Amino acid sequence: MEEKITFTPIGIVHSPYKEPKGVPIQPAGAKGSRGVIEIYPEYAPGLKDLEGFSHIYVLFHFHKGRLPPESLKLVPYLDDKERGLFATRAPSRPNPIGLSLLKLVEVRGRELHVEDLDMIDDTPVLDIKPFAARFDNRENSKAGWLEGVIHKLDETRDDGRFKD
Amino acid sequence: MEEKITFTPIGIVHSPYKEPKGVPIQPAGAKGSRGVIEIYPEYAPGLKDLEGFSHIYVLFHFHKGRLPPESLKLVPYLDDKERGLFATRAPSRPNPIGLSLLKLVEVRGRELHVEDLDMIDDTPVLDIKPFAARFDNRENSKAGWLEGVIHKLDETRDDGRFKD
Repeated sequence: MEEKITFTPIGIVHSPYKEPKGVPIQPAGAKGSRGVIEIYPEYAPGLKDLEGFSHIYVLFHFHKGRLPPESLKLVPYLDDKERGLFATRAPSRPNPIGLSLLKLVEVRGRELHVEDLDMIDDTPVLDIKPFAARFDNRENSKAGWLEGVIHKLDETRDDGRFKD
Repeated sequence: MEEKITFTPIGIVHSPYKEPKGVPIQPAGAKGSRGVIEIYPEYAPGLKDLEGFSHIYVLFHFHKGRLPPESLKLVPYLDDKERGLFATRAPSRPNPIGLSLLKLVEVRGRELHVEDLDMIDDTPVLDIKPFAARFDNRENSKAGWLEGVIHKLDETRDDGRFKD
């Protein structure tokens, strides 16, 4: 099953973070850092009605952050134990697709002004989806190994460990 | 910027839904429908520690559901007005990547037994990410055009409109 699936970026991230090191490791730890997602002109008509949403999912390409494909276990930012890759949100993944849930401050033409940005400058954007609490919030969830360490989120930053 | 990004599936969905028509349109409307996400053997070591999480994001390829690239506005399942594509979760997207937030019932070897499945059989899986309420829940969000129609979720099913 060596099927290949090919995608083309629909936009690009303009971020104050110029390299992985120092980047907040989740929007929840980003404390309001601002940035702009620029959607390329040919896709701009698809932004209609987006301004009514307070939060958006951004799917993007982790263009800096690769591990050799055999690295299916790794020590994540918030922990000091080796974890299965799919039980982490680390950028080095077999398919390096990132998922950020950002606050949408304003839609200005084809610029999405966002808050809580945790992506680096020039990140290629693959998709934008609207967040809806009724679809996307979960009550009574369990967060496995993260439960004991998630309090460290606010003071944790990318230390460059997954840089290519 | 005609960069191409290529991904290879890490697994496949086994679902009771054999075609798009009739599929729940979000996990939140799927009322417990069960299925299995099979991760291919070479990626199985990455599943370590996942069993501690009650919910997972599944990123997948909408392999059935395409529109010509010019269709950046569409009438979504829950509405009767044309909306900007990126303000919807419709399967026909410039980069047809789906995002489902599923209940993880059990990890059995390289099989993820899940609930609230809204994907069709044989859907190629691109990534698995753990859900953590502290990262992923949002309070006081606004859901734009969806606010007025989201109550229709439970009785709405895919009617085949985005089938290829």
